[in-house]
Amino acid sequence: MIGKLVKDRVKSGKQAINELYNTGYYGRPKGDVLELTLVEAAYLLYKNKLEITLDDRTLGFEEFFTEASKRQQFFELKYIVYKDLRERGYYVQPSVTDFRVYPRGGHPGKTQAKMFVYVRSERVPMLLNDLISQYNAALNVRKQMVLAIVDEESDLTYYEVKKADIKGNMATSLPGDSTIPATMLEDRVLIWDEQASHLLHENGFYGKPLDNERLQLSLVESAYLLEQGVIEIKDSVKEDMVDLTQFSEMAYSIEPDFMRKYNTYVDLRSRGFVPKTGFKFGTHFRVYNEVQSISKLPHSEYLIHAIPQDYEFFLPVMSRAVRLANSVRKQMLYAVEYASGIEYVDIGRIKM
Amino acid sequence: MIGKLVKDRVKSGKQAINELYNTGYYGRPKGDVLELTLVEAAYLLYKNKLEITLDDRTLGFEEFFTEASKRQQFFELKYIVYKDLRERGYYVQPSVTDFRVYPRGGHPGKTQAKMFVYVRSERVPMLLNDLISQYNAALNVRKQMVLAIVDEESDLTYYEVKKADIKGNMATSLPGDSTIPATMLEDRVLIWDEQASHLLHENGFYGKPLDNERLQLSLVESAYLLEQGVIEIKDSVKEDMVDLTQFSEMAYSIEPDFMRKYNTYVDLRSRGFVPKTGFKFGTHFRVYNEVQSISKLPHSEYLIHAIPQDYEFFLPVMSRAVRLANSVRKQMLYAVEYASGIEYVDIGRIKM
Repeated sequence: MIGKLVKDRVKSGKQAINELYNTGYYGRPKGDVLELTLVEAAYLLYKNKLEITLDDRTLGFEEFFTEASKRQQFFELKYIVYKDLRERGYYVQPSVTDFRVYPRGGHPGKTQAKMFVYVRSERVPMLLNDLISQYNAALNVRKQMVLAIVDEESDLTYYEVKKADIKGNMATSLPGDSTIPATMLEDRVLIWDEQASHLLHENGFYGKPLDNERLQLSLVESAYLLEQGVIEIKDSVKEDMVDLTQFSEMAYSIEPDFMRKYNTYVDLRSRGFVPKTGFKFGTHFRVYNEVQSISKLPHSEYLIHAIPQDYEFFLPVMSRAVRLANSVRKQMLYAVEYASGIEYVDIGRIKM
Repeated sequence: MIGKLVKDRVKSGKQAINELYNTGYYGRPKGDVLELTLVEAAYLLYKNKLEITLDDRTLGFEEFFTEASKRQQFFELKYIVYKDLRERGYYVQPSVTDFRVYPRGGHPGKTQAKMFVYVRSERVPMLLNDLISQYNAALNVRKQMVLAIVDEESDLTYYEVKKADIKGNMATSLPGDSTIPATMLEDRVLIWDEQASHLLHENGFYGKPLDNERLQLSLVESAYLLEQGVIEIKDSVKEDMVDLTQFSEMAYSIEPDFMRKYNTYVDLRSRGFVPKTGFKFGTHFRVYNEVQSISKLPHSEYLIHAIPQDYEFFLPVMSRAVRLANSVRKQMLYAVEYASGIEYVDIGRIKM
C-alpha cells in the first residue's frame, strides 16, 4: 500500500480504507481517500504496513521520520506517545487535543472516545490556566483528561487531571468560651496558659506544644483562631493587640505566600479537614480527614499546595511532588483560588 | 538560684557554677560568675532551676521569653533546637555556629564536641556558599556538620551535610570501532542503525530504544558520545555535521541547564557511574554504580542534581528532594562545579 506525503498528511487510496481503517482504525476516510497524520504514517511505516512516497520517491524510515520532524512541532514526542498507546492495545485518533483514545474493547464508530491525551515535554513549563481550560474542554464532552509527559530520555509518564470536591469529617466547633491571650514573637505565636494550650492542641490539633504548659501556633493557625475570636494576639514589640488585618500584614512580611496559604487553610477547615504543615513533604499542607485523638494520630490523606491562578508547573517539580505523595500513600492536590472559591486540582499518576 | 539579665546574657554567681555548670554543663564559668546564653537561661527557667531578674524584678517565663525574643534574632528557633537536643540527652554549648554538641557520654572538659549544629528556619533560603564555608569550618576542626531545620509549626528535622567522594564500578570502555551516524531532530538525537543501537544501549546503557531497530539519545548522552568520537551528529535542518561546540549551543537553546548537566554527566561517567535521567524524581540524574545487563537493571544508588555555585536552597524543596530520595532508598547528592572539578554535597536526614 502506498501513501503520498502532502504537507503534514499522508494520503492513501481506497484499499487503505479497507486494510488500515476498517481493521485498525488508522486515519480518517475522506471519500475514496484515507488521510493519515504524520505519526500514524510513521507508525504504519515502522510496522511495514505502508510505503510512503514524496514526489514519486519512496522514503525510508529515517528519511520520513526526519522529514516529519521538520514538518510538525513535537513530532518525536507525539510519535513516542502514539506508539506507546497503540502498543498497549488502544485505538487512537487525532483530535483538537493531541489524541482521542478509545476505551479497551471500543473503537471509532462503535464507542465514544474515553480520554483526551495531551502530549507534553518535561522541558516545557505548563500553565495552570491552559491545564484548566483543557480540563474543562474534556469535562464538557465527558472525557477523562490525561497528560502524557515525555522526559529527556523519552520515558513516558501518564497523569490524570481532575477537580476534586473534597470533604473531611471533623466537626468545626471551636474550643473555648473566653478569648485566649497569645503573643506574636518573631515569627510565631505563643499561648502561655496551660489549660488553653491543652484545649487548643487536643481539640482540633492546633499548634505544637513548646513544653507541657505552652503552645506554639503557626501563622495560618493564629490568623484563623484570631478571626474566629478564639484567641487575641499581642504584638511583643508594640505591646499592643493586633487585628486580623494587622496580623496578616505582619505574617505577609514574614511569609510572602501567607494570604494564599491562609485562604486555603480557612477553606480546608470549613470543609471539615485538619490541615497541618506539609514542610517535610515540600508542600504547604498535609491534611487529615479527622483527628479524634492527638495521641493516636491517623494517617493524613492529602498533600495540598496553594498556587496562584497564573501558576506555571515545572514538570520535573510536579513529577517529584506527585511521586513523593504516592510514596507516602497520600494524594497530591493543588489548591487554586478563584472568585467563586477555592478549587482543588488532583494530578495523579496513572497506569494506562 | 538567681541570674541577672544583662543584654543578651544571664549572669549568676559561684553557686550556679557548682550546681548548673558542674552537674549539667550549663553556661561558661568566668571567674566567679556563670554566664548563660538566653536559650540556656530560658531552658533553666522552664526547668525551675533558675530565677531570672531584670532591674531587681523577677521575670516569669512569658516575660523572659518575650524579652529574649526581642534581644536575640531567631531566639525561638534556637530555643526549640536547644531544648530538643538537651531532652535527647546531649550536652550542648554555644559556639561561633549556633551550638556545639558533645557525643553521648561526653561533656565539656572530658571530650571534644562532636557536632556543629546550625539552626535554620524553613522560611529562610540557604546559600550554597554559606553551607560550604560552614562545612569547611566544621571539617577543619573535625566536627560533624548538622543542620537543624525548624518548620512553621516548630517541628524539627536534622540533616548531616558532608562531601562525598563517590566511585562507581563501570568500566569506561566505549563501544564501537567506527563512528556511528546519528541525527539531531527537534530536541533529541536518533541512531538509525540496528546494530549500533543495540551496541550503545547494551554496553553502557546509553539511550532508549525507539523500537527494535532505532535508539534515541538524550542531549547529554549525545554530547558525551560525540566528544568521545563514538557518534557523529547530523543536524536534520542544516543537513550538516555538527561539532561539540555547535551541538552544545543547540542543546543550550533547548535546555538552559545543559552545560552544567553535561559537565556533571562527564564527571560521573569518568568516575565509573552510569547516569540516566532522574526526571521522575525531579532531579537531573539517577545514577547506577554499574549496569552489567539492561535486562536485569540494578537499583540506582544516587539521585544527583547539578547546581551552580551561587545556588540558593529553598528548604521545603530540599526537604522534599531528600525525603523522596530516602523513600526510594537512594542518596540525594548535589553536584557543584568548581575550577578544581566537580564536588558532591551529600545532604542526608539523620536521627539525633
